[in-house]
Amino acid sequence: MKKLSRKTFFKGLALGTISLPFFIRALGGQNQAQPSSPNIISTKRYRWKMVTTWPPNFPVLGEGCQLFADWVKEMSDGRMEIEVYGGGELVPPLEAFNAVRMNVAEVGSGAGYYWKGIVPAAQFFASIPFGLNAQQMNAWLITGGGMQLWEELYAEYGLVPAPGGNTGVQMGGWFNREINSMADFKGLKMRIPGVGAKVLEKAGGAPVLLPGAELYTGLERGVIDATEWIGPYHDYEMGFHQIAKYYYTPGWHEAGTTLEFFFNKEKFDALEKDLQMILRTAAHRLNMWMLCEFETKNSIYLEKLRQEAEVDIRQFPDEVLRQLRQYTEEAVAEEIAGDPFSQKVYASYNAFRNRAGNWSKLTEKVFYNSLQI
Amino acid sequence: MKKLSRKTFFKGLALGTISLPFFIRALGGQNQAQPSSPNIISTKRYRWKMVTTWPPNFPVLGEGCQLFADWVKEMSDGRMEIEVYGGGELVPPLEAFNAVRMNVAEVGSGAGYYWKGIVPAAQFFASIPFGLNAQQMNAWLITGGGMQLWEELYAEYGLVPAPGGNTGVQMGGWFNREINSMADFKGLKMRIPGVGAKVLEKAGGAPVLLPGAELYTGLERGVIDATEWIGPYHDYEMGFHQIAKYYYTPGWHEAGTTLEFFFNKEKFDALEKDLQMILRTAAHRLNMWMLCEFETKNSIYLEKLRQEAEVDIRQFPDEVLRQLRQYTEEAVAEEIAGDPFSQKVYASYNAFRNRAGNWSKLTEKVFYNSLQI
Repeated sequence: MKKLSRKTFFKGLALGTISLPFFIRALGGQNQAQPSSPNIISTKRYRWKMVTTWPPNFPVLGEGCQLFADWVKEMSDGRMEIEVYGGGELVPPLEAFNAVRMNVAEVGSGAGYYWKGIVPAAQFFASIPFGLNAQQMNAWLITGGGMQLWEELYAEYGLVPAPGGNTGVQMGGWFNREINSMADFKGLKMRIPGVGAKVLEKAGGAPVLLPGAELYTGLERGVIDATEWIGPYHDYEMGFHQIAKYYYTPGWHEAGTTLEFFFNKEKFDALEKDLQMILRTAAHRLNMWMLCEFETKNSIYLEKLRQEAEVDIRQFPDEVLRQLRQYTEEAVAEEIAGDPFSQKVYASYNAFRNRAGNWSKLTEKVFYNSLQI
Repeated sequence: MKKLSRKTFFKGLALGTISLPFFIRALGGQNQAQPSSPNIISTKRYRWKMVTTWPPNFPVLGEGCQLFADWVKEMSDGRMEIEVYGGGELVPPLEAFNAVRMNVAEVGSGAGYYWKGIVPAAQFFASIPFGLNAQQMNAWLITGGGMQLWEELYAEYGLVPAPGGNTGVQMGGWFNREINSMADFKGLKMRIPGVGAKVLEKAGGAPVLLPGAELYTGLERGVIDATEWIGPYHDYEMGFHQIAKYYYTPGWHEAGTTLEFFFNKEKFDALEKDLQMILRTAAHRLNMWMLCEFETKNSIYLEKLRQEAEVDIRQFPDEVLRQLRQYTEEAVAEEIAGDPFSQKVYASYNAFRNRAGNWSKLTEKVFYNSLQI
């Protein structure tokens, strides 16, 4: 991957702002009959568009979308070509969901919690605070019944979902204030979106909505006291280590966020069966690849951060995590109160979480703890 | 999945025994020209054979091989059909590796440590004691440089490898003797293969080679004092909870075993590029699916074991794990001593383990520990 400067990295970072639907170019039918390759004679060739919530060529997330397109092209022997658009290139980042529903593009890439204003239950297929980690999310979705619920939900919106990446456990964010007890959250101005923001409010803090591109100066100038982002790799590029005192763990608000593809259902259903399976399978491969890339790059950049900046890494006290989890339960209860489908999804999610938690207590937990004995 | 009786489950379980190469049916060319489907006119259709080390329809592992074949068939619109043979159906289980090298079958499914007698370095692509867990193995292979080494290694044997599954952290096994200190390993007769067996020897124990089908009666009659197997799902089917006193964790000997596909390189290289990518991508999807299925089923069967048998689950004391890890380091040093390629692979593996260990200490480890605070 080419090295990105912070400036380039910022370009197009607009995840904090939602514009109204605004489709600069209305695009018609995407299928074009074209000559076949020597080996395969197919009746149809497709030129699809993918709109994404990521800045163009965004590390891991945007890169992954391009990898997906490459794999699909190669598996289909060129019958299916997908052009990947960064957020804002075709439609504003957070319009990706509606753009695919309205067939401005055939496929989109994002995360379910971005559209919880449209589809409340969608956030459970991305991440909720104190939720499942990557291994558990994948298991719940792929063999634990989650995928069926997700498909049922998105079908209502004319979409077909597929898991398309996972961040792994994120970091808790960069702070210019120590967090030693719940009292330290009082008045804390922190950039944190979604249910995490509600939890912060319950703790007495003040969630601030700032677009990614304004976080650095916001933190530098004290507009905010803290911000979460992702993990060492992306955070390093943002330069937070230059201006923040403490780097907190864990990312209690995002323990294993699933990124997603969503296909226009009408377009997807009209595809030949082999192309449908190619798209699904490429998504599953990318789902794994992204988690691997996060794990590999975060490991490297954690080392780099420590060497270059001697970052002061702190862990939230147990008492703080306990209380934040309590607030999370209240916040989630409020989220699902008016939405039967959210209740159904959360029941499945929660049952899985309890069972998988018991299992991991004997295995993955013991594994990680035994690394340091 | 259909419920398997223990008898059915045993059928063909012969992983403990290695026969000499013995190919009952020598098979010729596999490609057959066939009429095309209405939609795709391709020049070639393939009917491939997959030999596996698993008993026919073995839960998760054998089932996964069939899923892989289904996905490949659907993605290729029927151009590539793979018939899956259980261990012993076409060649003995542990002959799968050589069978594919000799083109008796085009593809095989197994785990690298089964053929370390032929390819010493292969075991690092499956599992070594106190090695990487699933998330780390995948990251090392897929984005951490492991795959390149694996391909280089297997090319020497006329094969193309692909990751094709992961068990997750296994359990430490069923014991009829308490393990409170290293002294309890003295004279312990335990079924444990590979490097784990060497470690047990260093600890004063007596590793016993018993085929899977003889483990139940062996444990019942005191031929062995302990046996490792996989995790709650498979262990439940084996019935060990009926005859063993303690179920120990963690599976220090297998923290995240990668299962693998290996393709006959000449056959693979001769395929059209789209089919090559279809095979690779289906393998990656299965790699994820298996881990998910293990996670889901083990969670369910752990609950079942606890409800039905009130199993006494114990954790190896830290002192024991520390000492076993020390012995493992000695055993691995002996394993790689005479083999430069093993040394190269282990150097890469170990560097990744150290970096990923530091990262997981801040994230996955904290996540799992915070589940119980």
